[in-house]
Amino acid sequence: MHFDSEARLDGGVLRRGFTHDEVPGVLWTPASATSSAPVPLILLGHPGGLRRMHPRLEARARHCAGLGYAAATVELPGSGERPSIAVVERARTDLRQAIAAGERPSDDVVDRLILPLVEQAVPEWRSVLDAVLELPEVGGPVAISGGVIAVGVRLAAVEPRIVAAGLFAGSYVPRSIIEQARLVTVPVHVLLQWDDRGNDRQMALDLFDAFASREKTLQANTGGHTGVPQFAADDASRFFARHLG
Amino acid sequence: MHFDSEARLDGGVLRRGFTHDEVPGVLWTPASATSSAPVPLILLGHPGGLRRMHPRLEARARHCAGLGYAAATVELPGSGERPSIAVVERARTDLRQAIAAGERPSDDVVDRLILPLVEQAVPEWRSVLDAVLELPEVGGPVAISGGVIAVGVRLAAVEPRIVAAGLFAGSYVPRSIIEQARLVTVPVHVLLQWDDRGNDRQMALDLFDAFASREKTLQANTGGHTGVPQFAADDASRFFARHLG
Repeated sequence: MHFDSEARLDGGVLRRGFTHDEVPGVLWTPASATSSAPVPLILLGHPGGLRRMHPRLEARARHCAGLGYAAATVELPGSGERPSIAVVERARTDLRQAIAAGERPSDDVVDRLILPLVEQAVPEWRSVLDAVLELPEVGGPVAISGGVIAVGVRLAAVEPRIVAAGLFAGSYVPRSIIEQARLVTVPVHVLLQWDDRGNDRQMALDLFDAFASREKTLQANTGGHTGVPQFAADDASRFFARHLG
Repeated sequence: MHFDSEARLDGGVLRRGFTHDEVPGVLWTPASATSSAPVPLILLGHPGGLRRMHPRLEARARHCAGLGYAAATVELPGSGERPSIAVVERARTDLRQAIAAGERPSDDVVDRLILPLVEQAVPEWRSVLDAVLELPEVGGPVAISGGVIAVGVRLAAVEPRIVAAGLFAGSYVPRSIIEQARLVTVPVHVLLQWDDRGNDRQMALDLFDAFASREKTLQANTGGHTGVPQFAADDASRFFARHLG
């Protein structure tokens, strides 16, 4: 992990840009994070495009820092300045055509759009997790928050260091990922925007049903994709506080 | 409204048993409630059987008092010491037979079980509301909390003094009541126990979808009918605090 930028933000939060195995990312640590008092970590998911997403990611990271947690994110495969993935781009075109025609995207389109991302992103996130947890000021436990939900599900299913998953049901989920949700046993908090037209509500409900977690919460709210109410964000924060301490 | 018992509980909460038009009920008011500082009111729903439900109702009422709210409840038609309703009793037998046979209860059984309750209970609750709001120490606004969800939906649809509805999706809902949910515009917070075997999950989702409220939240949690987690109860409290002040 190579740090290539560093800035101290208001409130003492340290923001460091990094590159890890050619993947760009950002790490935010609160002023309280020291080698004698290492802090928990939240992996911040996003839909891809670190530069475009930066203001929202930094707001979420500062919120994490306020709770005493470090936050880290990495660019998704095929997004931002990373080389595009041809099969995903073709699937995205097919998805747009289906939606424009008022059709439900086929399972095949969803698989081609999402599965390559999952296959490539999950090992990358786990490798970044290895590197971040080697820093003396970051100690875990680790949670994931938001982003492409299929990536979050796979991460929660395969990565034993993740103790809680706060997920946003705002992107399509391949059937095979719904099956993998049956392997997830950590506490799960799923936000669903009930009127999100670019999402498949029934798929989100099927996914929620599949989690094997003893503690799982679905919170559905009125509104479209970007309309998550403040109180729902607050409830999600309390979910992380319950499980990260 | 005739008060027939009175007790001062720990913390200064005043509990008064009452009879109103031959219907028994209980009113709890916090010590802070005075004619110069009248408090908001929460109507506490329940499945019927005031005596049996008393410990849980009083715990909820004391929680309300801790938030600065009065709480009132009344016996349901056909429950506790009130005369039973023959059509409802027959429907209850049919419901038990259907469940024992592993069948989904028919719409007809649900209608016969629930609609007579709704028809009789809603005017009774509204009449009790008239009487309680005449007390100088209770001023409103008014919310409803839990109980037979079809009663809560009808109340929220027809009673303009209700500004918020916290509902528990734990009992069957007639199709006609789902239609009436389209008239509900106040903020709604619906708790659903995802693994409640005595409930119809899809019916609860259809009901949630029907509310016309600009703010509506569905919170579904792992567990059976009586397993609502503490954090979900806390989230519901915050819902009331947002809307009752």
